[in-house]
Amino acid sequence: MTLSAEQQAEIDAARANPQPTLRAVAPGMEKHLYTAQPVLDHGFVRAIDYMGDDAAIVQAARVSYGAGTKHVSNDEGLIRYLMRHWHSTPFEMCEIKLHVKLPVFVARQWIRHRTANVNEYSARYSILDREFYIPEPAQLAAQSTVNNQGRGAVLEGAEAARVLALLKSDAAQMYDHYEEMLSQDDQQGLARELARMNLPMNIYTQWYWKTDLHNLFHFLRLRADAHAQYEIRVYAEAIAAMVADWVPLAFGAFEDYRMGGVTLSGKAIDVLKRMLKGEEVTRESSGMSIGEWREFKGVWK
Amino acid sequence: MTLSAEQQAEIDAARANPQPTLRAVAPGMEKHLYTAQPVLDHGFVRAIDYMGDDAAIVQAARVSYGAGTKHVSNDEGLIRYLMRHWHSTPFEMCEIKLHVKLPVFVARQWIRHRTANVNEYSARYSILDREFYIPEPAQLAAQSTVNNQGRGAVLEGAEAARVLALLKSDAAQMYDHYEEMLSQDDQQGLARELARMNLPMNIYTQWYWKTDLHNLFHFLRLRADAHAQYEIRVYAEAIAAMVADWVPLAFGAFEDYRMGGVTLSGKAIDVLKRMLKGEEVTRESSGMSIGEWREFKGVWK
Amino acid sequence: MTLSAEQQAEIDAARANPQPTLRAVAPGMEKHLYTAQPVLDHGFVRAIDYMGDDAAIVQAARVSYGAGTKHVSNDEGLIRYLMRHWHSTPFEMCEIKLHVKLPVFVARQWIRHRTANVNEYSARYSILDREFYIPEPAQLAAQSTVNNQGRGAVLEGAEAARVLALLKSDAAQMYDHYEEMLSQDDQQGLARELARMNLPMNIYTQWYWKTDLHNLFHFLRLRADAHAQYEIRVYAEAIAAMVADWVPLAFGAFEDYRMGGVTLSGKAIDVLKRMLKGEEVTRESSGMSIGEWREFKGVWK
Amino acid sequence: MTLSAEQQAEIDAARANPQPTLRAVAPGMEKHLYTAQPVLDHGFVRAIDYMGDDAAIVQAARVSYGAGTKHVSNDEGLIRYLMRHWHSTPFEMCEIKLHVKLPVFVARQWIRHRTANVNEYSARYSILDREFYIPEPAQLAAQSTVNNQGRGAVLEGAEAARVLALLKSDAAQMYDHYEEMLSQDDQQGLARELARMNLPMNIYTQWYWKTDLHNLFHFLRLRADAHAQYEIRVYAEAIAAMVADWVPLAFGAFEDYRMGGVTLSGKAIDVLKRMLKGEEVTRESSGMSIGEWREFKGVWK
Repeated sequence: MTLSAEQQAEIDAARANPQPTLRAVAPGMEKHLYTAQPVLDHGFVRAIDYMGDDAAIVQAARVSYGAGTKHVSNDEGLIRYLMRHWHSTPFEMCEIKLHVKLPVFVARQWIRHRTANVNEYSARYSILDREFYIPEPAQLAAQSTVNNQGRGAVLEGAEAARVLALLKSDAAQMYDHYEEMLSQDDQQGLARELARMNLPMNIYTQWYWKTDLHNLFHFLRLRADAHAQYEIRVYAEAIAAMVADWVPLAFGAFEDYRMGGVTLSGKAIDVLKRMLKGEEVTRESSGMSIGEWREFKGVWK
Repeated sequence: MTLSAEQQAEIDAARANPQPTLRAVAPGMEKHLYTAQPVLDHGFVRAIDYMGDDAAIVQAARVSYGAGTKHVSNDEGLIRYLMRHWHSTPFEMCEIKLHVKLPVFVARQWIRHRTANVNEYSARYSILDREFYIPEPAQLAAQSTVNNQGRGAVLEGAEAARVLALLKSDAAQMYDHYEEMLSQDDQQGLARELARMNLPMNIYTQWYWKTDLHNLFHFLRLRADAHAQYEIRVYAEAIAAMVADWVPLAFGAFEDYRMGGVTLSGKAIDVLKRMLKGEEVTRESSGMSIGEWREFKGVWK
Repeated sequence: MTLSAEQQAEIDAARANPQPTLRAVAPGMEKHLYTAQPVLDHGFVRAIDYMGDDAAIVQAARVSYGAGTKHVSNDEGLIRYLMRHWHSTPFEMCEIKLHVKLPVFVARQWIRHRTANVNEYSARYSILDREFYIPEPAQLAAQSTVNNQGRGAVLEGAEAARVLALLKSDAAQMYDHYEEMLSQDDQQGLARELARMNLPMNIYTQWYWKTDLHNLFHFLRLRADAHAQYEIRVYAEAIAAMVADWVPLAFGAFEDYRMGGVTLSGKAIDVLKRMLKGEEVTRESSGMSIGEWREFKGVWK
Repeated sequence: MTLSAEQQAEIDAARANPQPTLRAVAPGMEKHLYTAQPVLDHGFVRAIDYMGDDAAIVQAARVSYGAGTKHVSNDEGLIRYLMRHWHSTPFEMCEIKLHVKLPVFVARQWIRHRTANVNEYSARYSILDREFYIPEPAQLAAQSTVNNQGRGAVLEGAEAARVLALLKSDAAQMYDHYEEMLSQDDQQGLARELARMNLPMNIYTQWYWKTDLHNLFHFLRLRADAHAQYEIRVYAEAIAAMVADWVPLAFGAFEDYRMGGVTLSGKAIDVLKRMLKGEEVTRESSGMSIGEWREFKGVWK
């Protein structure tokens, strides 16, 4: 990731100017504000603004007059109780606004999370930069042979080299053609809203994205998960690290009950109870499908 | 509206403790934070938190790196352009959180605005206070004879006195019975989640309510409108006054294009064009229904 | 529940008139259409319309051209897979529209489910009927002594009689006063939008409510749960019974993975693994709070 | 647009099998069901399912027991009233499900309408077809010189030929490389979730898209508008034609009040009033900005 001198100056200026506020302030998030956290080769996540902190969750749950409670330990217990019992509304009382630079194919997954506010850089209005995502060799994986929507072993040798060369030369060529079509030197110049259609989906775009903490947790649970595609997972992980600093109690509860948790079906509960009684349960006697049993054994091996 | 000494102390404490932040700060809103703005006889609106300011709208619309633009006049022009062309997403980048105390029948209208986050005081968990909305004599209006869902002339004399007396005595009696049923003196005491069902809908409830500026404008357009019921309109007006201080440029555009604006149908455009050419258009020659024509003449009388 | 002769005639007429359609038809739901399923003393749930069936979930998940698949067993496996892995979007492709008559205090809980479409009977525009929810003696419960938002033992003897008498006489009196205030005999008559505020929250209201199957499942999981208040749970149960007939495969998966399932925290997984190895784990050695441990033992006793 | 014989057979089979239903049936939409309406060079829109009709809007607005009203003329008056006064909830009681094949850059605009349900063909799971949008010569337009996000004159001669040739050869080459990278002949084969990133944004994707009539009208107002990009506008127009057959009364009201309507600011109302009195108003005396005045004169020339 490279920021222009001008962009860096704007970020530095924003960070140099603390002002007094009466709102809840989360010191753990203040230290991140505006700074661009690098993700992938040209991407980043920048926290632009936030609303609330751990105490604000408690305050809303209690519909209270004051700004917090007496004891942090009480706050933690209540926050864990709310998370455990799926009381989501108090978590919606915190909000975060991010500036994200990301490849278009990642943006297409991301946007499926509908409960968020988005302003994307417009390629109808402006010209996109010459920046494309080219995977690290370690990320250049083959199609998984067991998972229809996953990756297997890393490509090696000539095949890896061929793929990398293709990705690079195609991106360069497509951007050259984009510029050629747009050019107004001795020609009219194709409309931007049309020229953009020739660009590959590893080109970078940018957006402002704003959501509440409950929906952000939902995003993180799905996208920071091991089954998520690597290229969106690294964004989710970068965001998760900031959230841990912003609302440490809520994030701790989220980690325990959601990220580190597991949902058992009625069948799985039954099997576990039999196992606790010492019974040797097999796939056949479990009543589960092959896939279900594989996933079950993955946890309870 | 009366706050307990403890509640006022909590508000004072929150207002006494400015802290430095790197976020966008809106001085016009800082002065309102936490203070309870009285509405109706026992209600209030308190701004608890906010995110963003006029510059944040511009910043999101431009997906920019810095915190604002050079010239306020440019910001105003862009904000008016966005409002005029229904580009709503940049306005969604501002957020506000309110603590509201309001009668239940008002809350039932309010909650119909779905794009918002809400934590309401729980009458399953807690006991409601003995506070009921009793209208001012000037608000004790008869059913409108022209509008099926509106008010007509103010009630007078004995009828007004009778209504007021009924509202007051019924509220008092129902609350007495609420307490009687809940009481655990020499009896088990009815569950709170059941006892509450006997309370009338002018009892006050409270909630934390959080929404973005675009959806807040939508709320204000419908609820600060002359056709809205008085009892919700006064809340909308109290909020509007705070929003005018928070994001003056956006609020100015909203006032001009939404609150002070009007939508014309294709038929109405046609009629106005004929009138501009000097034609005398009648209801019959307008092609409008009776209701449409009355509304049209209401503006273009 | 009593329907007027006219209402029953309208329902009968709607049920008497099958017409051909090319859309997916769910025979299990057709048999319920329009019929009012009684709930509580005066309430009901009526299915008014639906979109899709089990095959439509599969069709959307596969973005297919045809109307279904060859084998029901394949559909079931895919639907269970989707449910197990929280792939919610295919379930959103089914939609249901209900007409519900319910007490206001139940409506106030229900409306908190925001992802739904609602048209409520307007008490600004019309006059409400004289119908109030009065609990069966078996539902007249004391406040729970262990759960702040729950019920304990059923009230008995004189206390139960006193409560019932109060609820009945208060409802009757409030409705008398409602009519008195509205009356235009020898007086102006208070506006309907004001008179309604004096009515208690056990009065019945009605609405059309429409939602997709994914959000309906979420509603059912929370409201058909043992912790939900009885008065909303009976509505959820009536709806669940219809859904089981409408989309039997999806409902089966929902029952197994959501209603009959349980979510384990990271801590709980760890404890279960130790128990599976034969360790005797206590609350102290579990690392769980008292509440967490009680809930854990409730499942794994 | 070309459908495979198998796809056409699936569509024909679905259309050949009418079944009885008790639900509201809209004959105007039945005739469209499943048939693929061609849009652009390879795209289409297919109506897969619908819920409700004009009478269902009225039924919900009245929270009625029966299926409709006595007189169509009453229905029309009420529907026009609801549209005129922005009573949106009754329109939400109709729902439509579409199968759409569209270029990715169009899908990226479309998805910004968040209040909808979507299942998109997964390029992680499956291999995309070799189908790219190549504009008709008449759509190959230059960048507008007056509108930063619009098109100007059509490209001509050598420039048009060059652009078309580039678009075609680039698409072909990128798809060749996509297949090369995926190939498992004598190599491992790149994961599908990675290979897709090299495809240009004029490749076609497909999705099931479901929304309610109110949100569909909002979509149509923005996307069937003259300012929308041509490539999404043609989809909106194809959908609008189906909606006109589905709910003719609601669509008529939508056309008059939304598509053919205009919103006037407070300033514009003032200017029109002065013009009606015979005053000659200039841009300077109007108080409007240059852009606002140009738009105003565009209507009231």
